[in-house]
Amino acid sequence: MEERINLSVLESFVSAVFHAMGCSSVDAETATRALVAADLRGIDSHGVARLSGYVRLWEAGRINASPKICIVHESPSTAVVDGDGGLGLVVAPWAMQVAIEKAKTAGTGWVSVCNSNHFGIAAHHAMMALEHDMTGIAMTNASAIVAPTFSSERLLGTNPICYAIPAGQEPAFVADFATTTAANGKLEILQRKGMDTPDGWLQDADGQPVNDAHALRKGGALLPLGGDREHGSHKGFALGSIVDILSGVFSGANFGPWVPPFPAYVPMPENQPGKGLGHFLGAMRIDAFRPASEFLADMDLWIRRFRQASPVSGQERVIIPGDPERAFEAERRAQGIPLLPVVWEDLRSVGEKFGINL
Amino acid sequence: MEERINLSVLESFVSAVFHAMGCSSVDAETATRALVAADLRGIDSHGVARLSGYVRLWEAGRINASPKICIVHESPSTAVVDGDGGLGLVVAPWAMQVAIEKAKTAGTGWVSVCNSNHFGIAAHHAMMALEHDMTGIAMTNASAIVAPTFSSERLLGTNPICYAIPAGQEPAFVADFATTTAANGKLEILQRKGMDTPDGWLQDADGQPVNDAHALRKGGALLPLGGDREHGSHKGFALGSIVDILSGVFSGANFGPWVPPFPAYVPMPENQPGKGLGHFLGAMRIDAFRPASEFLADMDLWIRRFRQASPVSGQERVIIPGDPERAFEAERRAQGIPLLPVVWEDLRSVGEKFGINL
Repeated sequence: MEERINLSVLESFVSAVFHAMGCSSVDAETATRALVAADLRGIDSHGVARLSGYVRLWEAGRINASPKICIVHESPSTAVVDGDGGLGLVVAPWAMQVAIEKAKTAGTGWVSVCNSNHFGIAAHHAMMALEHDMTGIAMTNASAIVAPTFSSERLLGTNPICYAIPAGQEPAFVADFATTTAANGKLEILQRKGMDTPDGWLQDADGQPVNDAHALRKGGALLPLGGDREHGSHKGFALGSIVDILSGVFSGANFGPWVPPFPAYVPMPENQPGKGLGHFLGAMRIDAFRPASEFLADMDLWIRRFRQASPVSGQERVIIPGDPERAFEAERRAQGIPLLPVVWEDLRSVGEKFGINL
Repeated sequence: MEERINLSVLESFVSAVFHAMGCSSVDAETATRALVAADLRGIDSHGVARLSGYVRLWEAGRINASPKICIVHESPSTAVVDGDGGLGLVVAPWAMQVAIEKAKTAGTGWVSVCNSNHFGIAAHHAMMALEHDMTGIAMTNASAIVAPTFSSERLLGTNPICYAIPAGQEPAFVADFATTTAANGKLEILQRKGMDTPDGWLQDADGQPVNDAHALRKGGALLPLGGDREHGSHKGFALGSIVDILSGVFSGANFGPWVPPFPAYVPMPENQPGKGLGHFLGAMRIDAFRPASEFLADMDLWIRRFRQASPVSGQERVIIPGDPERAFEAERRAQGIPLLPVVWEDLRSVGEKFGINL
């Protein structure tokens, strides 16, 4: 059974942990907001369930709690940011703010980031643009657990893409998705239930299709969106590759099989060509394209038309990207955030390490 | 049997047809290069097989052969271009040139286009950026033959995305793909062979999965990349939606179910909110992010590492996006372009209309 925790109690605890790791007060709050955004939006795999993982990376010397984040290259609409080994939860918002400032003067801002770490959910960073009447874009590469089409090797991460596009009366369009058939979090749910996966999610160590939810531990791989060639996996592979290149090659971070792993016990890949993990962040001022009122009215029309589509039998309606996460957030802000017993235990054990009660 | 035609003979013929339609000499050449690029790259569904379709749109008054293309809104890194109802084959290269010029000074350039028509293959436009040491991006919306996840209505086009990313010694990375499980061209191949489609490509008029390659004519729809919810079709739906919004809402073109159809006999949708069909084009100077030599060396490393991945049994190697199309182009430039008898016949009948021999 899941027991709920009040949002502000959880935030205070998480912030205290980041502070105890050596983060400044400002950085601890920034990281907390980014991490807990996942729990609020129902992406439980990317929220506080990962807090102990960040702590272990810090203990292993792979995360710098007091980074000197800086711009190392720039043009009127672009920048490369060096995260100095900091938490992605801190580095990505810093870089997104640079993208937003660039967009204010140049119309758009595009920031590729090197020397960072796992940044939580992409949507949190992309959505920073919304309050400025900008479209926000966020991507990140991640350690390799995905096999390209026709490869038996794992060469890509689940490399998510988020676009957050403002609307007028309607809530914003927010699409945030891994470029694989299924995200790792969905796999973990089936693992806990002892169930097989559908076709098209996984292959085994030889590259053969498999339904074993534990295939990753046995040298298998997640499959790119599409699943196999006949169902367009070369497109999912292309998408994951684009994210990897924008995040890694554009910035001088690592890419492909060289991206640092999240679990601290996994050794770092050898002969890494770059620095840390990479992100790519963008901001586009809507009035750099059209008068804002016209843009927002057309986005409202877009959203309403799609939401009103005739549903297939057995389904209530077409779901606009961002709708389910917004519903989660409203409910969890009011009712608290449900945590699995294993997550409660994990958080308490992190707290004990630093003498922080939960 | 397919009979081959020499590239320059085909180009002269196509250019003469566009000229006879009223295009200026420069526009006729621009349109010809864009159209024939599809045949060269092996995307036969988007090449000269469509020439008669463009002519019929012009005859129906839906294409303006002598458009006054202009910028209607801009910022240092952005513009909206009004195509004045011109051929997308002419309007998109014009707009891509604007994106490239913006990128020269601002680092990146982003152009959303309204009041255009079908632009051929996205890769032709995106690849214009490569010779400037820029990454090129091209997208377009298209008339609605795709159903969003859970919708029985068709609300999106096959809405392709292309990223063309320069490399150093290696050929460029060029990914150009429809955001559906299968492109319309692949469907047509199965129709000609009288074969069923794999699962996950199509649904019928009620929104139920179907393997009938003729389902579109019966009110059915293509499915977003992923095929169904369990295999991530909500991600393909999100991708197609992003392309639609960047192309349609950003520019003031039509979007969703209101995008003008390609077949001239299909009536225009009622109550259209915008002007014509929309595109979105981008250019990013590589040295706006990193010194070009470092960027190009890392792209070479990326491409080589992925190409050298251990293949699954039965496959020769991992295919880098752009490899197959480049091989087609080299072979067809040397040996001529193979055309189906039905395409020869169609071209000759277009030629007769204007008194042009083939």
